[in-house]
Amino acid sequence: MSGTQGTHGTDTRDPVFDLHRGGKMEIASTVALDGPDDLSMAYTPGVARVCQAIAADPVLADDYTWVSNTVAVVTDGTAVLGLGDIGPAAAMPVMEGKAVLFKQFAGVDAVPLCLATKDTDEIVETVARLAPSFGGINLEDISAPRCFEIEQRLKDLLDIPVFHDDQHGTAVVVLAALENALRITGRKPAEARVVISGAGAAGVAVTRILLAAGVSDLAVTDRHGVLHSGRGDLTPVKASLARETADRTGRTGSLADVMAGADVFVGVSGGTVIFGLANPVPEVHPDVAHRHARVVATGRSDFPNQINNVLAFPGIFRGALDVRATAITEGMKLAAANALAELVAEGLSEAYVVPSPFDARVAPAVSAAVAAAARSDGVARR
Amino acid sequence: MSGTQGTHGTDTRDPVFDLHRGGKMEIASTVALDGPDDLSMAYTPGVARVCQAIAADPVLADDYTWVSNTVAVVTDGTAVLGLGDIGPAAAMPVMEGKAVLFKQFAGVDAVPLCLATKDTDEIVETVARLAPSFGGINLEDISAPRCFEIEQRLKDLLDIPVFHDDQHGTAVVVLAALENALRITGRKPAEARVVISGAGAAGVAVTRILLAAGVSDLAVTDRHGVLHSGRGDLTPVKASLARETADRTGRTGSLADVMAGADVFVGVSGGTVIFGLANPVPEVHPDVAHRHARVVATGRSDFPNQINNVLAFPGIFRGALDVRATAITEGMKLAAANALAELVAEGLSEAYVVPSPFDARVAPAVSAAVAAAARSDGVARR
Repeated sequence: MSGTQGTHGTDTRDPVFDLHRGGKMEIASTVALDGPDDLSMAYTPGVARVCQAIAADPVLADDYTWVSNTVAVVTDGTAVLGLGDIGPAAAMPVMEGKAVLFKQFAGVDAVPLCLATKDTDEIVETVARLAPSFGGINLEDISAPRCFEIEQRLKDLLDIPVFHDDQHGTAVVVLAALENALRITGRKPAEARVVISGAGAAGVAVTRILLAAGVSDLAVTDRHGVLHSGRGDLTPVKASLARETADRTGRTGSLADVMAGADVFVGVSGGTVIFGLANPVPEVHPDVAHRHARVVATGRSDFPNQINNVLAFPGIFRGALDVRATAITEGMKLAAANALAELVAEGLSEAYVVPSPFDARVAPAVSAAVAAAARSDGVARR
Repeated sequence: MSGTQGTHGTDTRDPVFDLHRGGKMEIASTVALDGPDDLSMAYTPGVARVCQAIAADPVLADDYTWVSNTVAVVTDGTAVLGLGDIGPAAAMPVMEGKAVLFKQFAGVDAVPLCLATKDTDEIVETVARLAPSFGGINLEDISAPRCFEIEQRLKDLLDIPVFHDDQHGTAVVVLAALENALRITGRKPAEARVVISGAGAAGVAVTRILLAAGVSDLAVTDRHGVLHSGRGDLTPVKASLARETADRTGRTGSLADVMAGADVFVGVSGGTVIFGLANPVPEVHPDVAHRHARVVATGRSDFPNQINNVLAFPGIFRGALDVRATAITEGMKLAAANALAELVAEGLSEAYVVPSPFDARVAPAVSAAVAAAARSDGVARR
């Protein structure tokens, strides 16, 4: 593998590359295939009766196929981690990672699908055509603003859950962490002054879930400063966000302007709570952030308070699939955040505002809360 | 599950339905995910370096993702077993069965994808967009004549193997069985008079591979009789088949007309060799067929000489993936048939013209032959 050595700039003992050799996942049979009798049942001629039963009563596919436990992890490779548009082939290691986390943390079977198109219409129609094979669709690492339209159109088209994890998974975990961080600093969401740096997929979804959770003084910034309706350069999504945030408080100006006096920064340094979520390199190193804030969180697994979507997406889909939800509602996301936050009730501290991804209570608590919320919201089918 | 009982007309003790409960397959992780260090390697931040390496040198995806060992099993549910157009949801049990056979017999990871479209253009573009996620495409149970165009267009578009198993898998196993059956009856392919009943997917491919193997006296029939150029009702595919078969011998008329004096019938009763391949109910019951022929084969696992595609497709894709083949050539199919036939050299008899699907020599022999043929044909990438 001498070619390999040169390319990734290290020798073949590199543990990350060693771990990835051959990929990180496989298909496994859950039935015996040890002889002709097994084959006659799992394949022809026996399987024909199962097909006929499903053709007569499609809901039986829930019971006699893997579909109702299976999620497609779909990307076009345009916004992979912090790496940007690296294309579908190079996105696969992340999607495989997502798939194995789905299985490990919630028993959900997930299939990584990296698409050779960046066209919004083509992505929507491709996923819609694949829908009979899956119980849910996890959109992943699709760049803004296309991700908003793609998710909305698929939600409108399909009667299975569609969930853009970069938006909503992040938002759920940020809300859970923020509820606990504010508890430590003695504020309620309605009293906190929050600045969110970034109006991409995560920024938009974090803003929306914080609004839904009762935060009212909220400013969102992009590279040109605070989003407000006085600006003439806003996309429809940003214009809508401006009306729900800075327009209400009249805040304008630069990021530095709104940072003065803010309690919470998501995505940037300063204030009493700092969530530096860029991956793999946080906006501010935790050691630096701690000079300015009591509670610091990052997206990294090697520092305390990891704002890791793995706290959310496995349990969210587990709960949604368990009740055959037709959608993932705002109520289900808020319920997931609250369930996550509550797991830290005992032992809450500056260095412990969200549970560890390896806390075995996480996925069961999130999935139970999500399933209950699906029932309350009328989207559960069983 | 009282609703289930009524629907499939049996109680919940039905072993076939019991076996299918929850589906027949799952995703499994091949890496440890037991703590934060594991997560840092399999997911962020470690995975980013693997993505960057693949972005810089796409061929590394072969080494560091599951793609090069993974096949999509794609159907639109229009020609499932002998059940016809039962739709994508009801086709899933067959596709899952196919996937677990791929794994069991050749270690190939296969993902069942049932599409919510029957449109030729839409199927082609959907599969083409999915191609970065797979090392090969196994088309399955797509009705004729669309299956011919879909396969050809995908072969033209993609640089990974595309293989319509109902055509070519069947053809490979029929050729293997026929070579051995003719050995028993003392004829060579060039001396045999062959009738093929049916000009659908399997009939067309069986015809083509028998022509490639040296059979020269061959008539194909559809419901209106022998395909020949004097008929005005032939599709382009059937017209092409007529020119390569009955036109050469001048045969015309009904199925009964060409059956008189024929040595081999594939798909119908009569002659000295009878392959009744309809599934799950053969055209002629083997007990009846044996009154008329020395060698009888069916698609059933509960009779001798099972013409089962599982003898072919796992080893064909195993061999193609092993050498990163860009296509599956005619030479690779012929090599697969010969390898299969040769496994029966010892012990050849009327009741043993093809090996058992559970003969552990099958997939290794087929994959080795296919890999060697890929190299000879210049389509191997490694």
